[in-house]
Amino acid sequence: MARIAILGAGMMGSALCMPLLDRGHELRLVGTVLDTEIITALKTGADHPSLRLPLPDAITPFQATELSDALRGIDAVALGVSSAGVRWAGRALAPLLPAGVPLLMVSKGLVYDGQRFEILPDVLKQELPAQLAVDAVAVGGPCIAGELARRVETCVVFTGRNPESLNTWAELARGPYYHVFTSSDAVGTEVCAALKNAYAMGIGFVAGLHEKSGGSAGSIARHNCEAALYAQAIHEAGQLLTLLGGSPECASGLPFAGDLNVTCNGGRTGRFGRFLGQGLGRAGAISAMNGATLECLEILETLRTGLSDIERKSERFRLGDLPFLSHMLEVALDDRPVDIPYQQFFKAPRPA
Amino acid sequence: MARIAILGAGMMGSALCMPLLDRGHELRLVGTVLDTEIITALKTGADHPSLRLPLPDAITPFQATELSDALRGIDAVALGVSSAGVRWAGRALAPLLPAGVPLLMVSKGLVYDGQRFEILPDVLKQELPAQLAVDAVAVGGPCIAGELARRVETCVVFTGRNPESLNTWAELARGPYYHVFTSSDAVGTEVCAALKNAYAMGIGFVAGLHEKSGGSAGSIARHNCEAALYAQAIHEAGQLLTLLGGSPECASGLPFAGDLNVTCNGGRTGRFGRFLGQGLGRAGAISAMNGATLECLEILETLRTGLSDIERKSERFRLGDLPFLSHMLEVALDDRPVDIPYQQFFKAPRPA
Repeated sequence: MARIAILGAGMMGSALCMPLLDRGHELRLVGTVLDTEIITALKTGADHPSLRLPLPDAITPFQATELSDALRGIDAVALGVSSAGVRWAGRALAPLLPAGVPLLMVSKGLVYDGQRFEILPDVLKQELPAQLAVDAVAVGGPCIAGELARRVETCVVFTGRNPESLNTWAELARGPYYHVFTSSDAVGTEVCAALKNAYAMGIGFVAGLHEKSGGSAGSIARHNCEAALYAQAIHEAGQLLTLLGGSPECASGLPFAGDLNVTCNGGRTGRFGRFLGQGLGRAGAISAMNGATLECLEILETLRTGLSDIERKSERFRLGDLPFLSHMLEVALDDRPVDIPYQQFFKAPRPA
Repeated sequence: MARIAILGAGMMGSALCMPLLDRGHELRLVGTVLDTEIITALKTGADHPSLRLPLPDAITPFQATELSDALRGIDAVALGVSSAGVRWAGRALAPLLPAGVPLLMVSKGLVYDGQRFEILPDVLKQELPAQLAVDAVAVGGPCIAGELARRVETCVVFTGRNPESLNTWAELARGPYYHVFTSSDAVGTEVCAALKNAYAMGIGFVAGLHEKSGGSAGSIARHNCEAALYAQAIHEAGQLLTLLGGSPECASGLPFAGDLNVTCNGGRTGRFGRFLGQGLGRAGAISAMNGATLECLEILETLRTGLSDIERKSERFRLGDLPFLSHMLEVALDDRPVDIPYQQFFKAPRPA
């Protein structure tokens, strides 16, 4: 039994309480400054507002202002903040963390610092004092928070640069319905987690094209196109993994093929792609999303900046060799109409 | 412009007429002995009974008894029969085919002859006189016939042992919405086409489990499990491809990951898996399918027989190293209850 604090009381941070609680750990769920209403609801015994279910009483809720109380005597910490909140969380935790504490983060994203792509555990590390020696464990793979919170069987990948923290967190978390597999490929796993948001948007184009041409959901849809885009997404992800220093095998495993599958099954990323496919245009599609956070736009902006730099410096890499990604960049960032370049698909990667 | 005869007027054989007709070819659609009602309907100008749409008048329908008329002066032949009809089709065509005619087959399946697995183009070849020198081109990849017949964008893989026939058929068939990619890996492509039916059944287990536990379709389903099974299916397909002499890369491409995606989007294979997941048992699930052909049972029987032989002779191969397939065999063939062995998933293959 361990004392575990989770910082970030959104859907995924809160859902993660369930397998940990079921393993017998003591759970403290701490809201960020954006989670005040959620924590207030939980303190009064109301349902979790976004998960729409009551959390077990054994989970103690804390407001962001109570972070130091929540961290007293803890054995392990988890971060459930969004990618945009990682630096804030690092600064908030820095004065409070015990040295060497095993730290898990469910945040997914990729950052380009003008020189190289960085994964979020490394971004977090920049905000923590070196003597803490914390290398965060990250989570990849297909996990819809609302399902995990309802104890649906889920397979995830934990990864990290510190094997001891990695194994500690895997042991703390794995249980009868939360199946934790471990990988030493932190870059590959994290790149996949970011890429899948972009490609899920592109696969969503198809549903929009179908509706635009007068089709309605049903047995005669455009599953052939969706399946082709899905296969091309795996194909391109393998090439991007090789380029960015991850193992290309991640593309066909839980971190990409699995996570892309779940991300295409509903959710806002696919809905945004659908609006683009319908022909609403970039501004119209963003407006139709009613202010929802669009991770896919963030990751596409990051990929365009970083990959364009790499293309300029490289003899070999050409963004045009990734025709699906290139088209998504044009549609989502440059407001070009959807016109999927199937004929450029499935080309063998350039030889190394 | 070529004169093309298609033997087999079921959904896929008939759907294939559309891209060929749109390329300007002359099309003759010949029913098998099982297609008499379909051809009769088409001869009277009625809708195609299973595609539920009218075929263009330019397609000439022929009954099986008119096969020799239909083949007069043809430049290319396509086979649209089921896997069970391949030997019959070979014998029917043998006396009528011009030597070296480019022959395409959309039949999907895998045969075990007591010694080795055989792909359907090789089974067909056994029924044709050697001097015809016909090596059939086979088709893999995600293609729902009802969508192709409605000119939905579709990406497929043509493969075959004769590069000339392969390129001829690719040139005849590819067009603005039927995107044909070619592969020299005939074994890999065909193994994938067969395997995807088995694994689509297994992924269907999850929907049945969800319903059995009182769940209804909706946003909180079991997408996490489906995505995990999908990734494990790709993982195991890669190992099976290596074992059977295909390229493991097929597992993550159109022939398997793409085709599995489309096969899971409805269709009878997934429905059968769902019934098994609901706990109807083998007999109950078969009965609930109302006599529909269950390719998944055929391929599972074939795999059990063939892989058990290989296991007996091999130092290295163990069927138990494929835990998802092993469980599907137990459920679908031995009437065991569904209990997915997630904890055995995602193990690295044994070293060669």
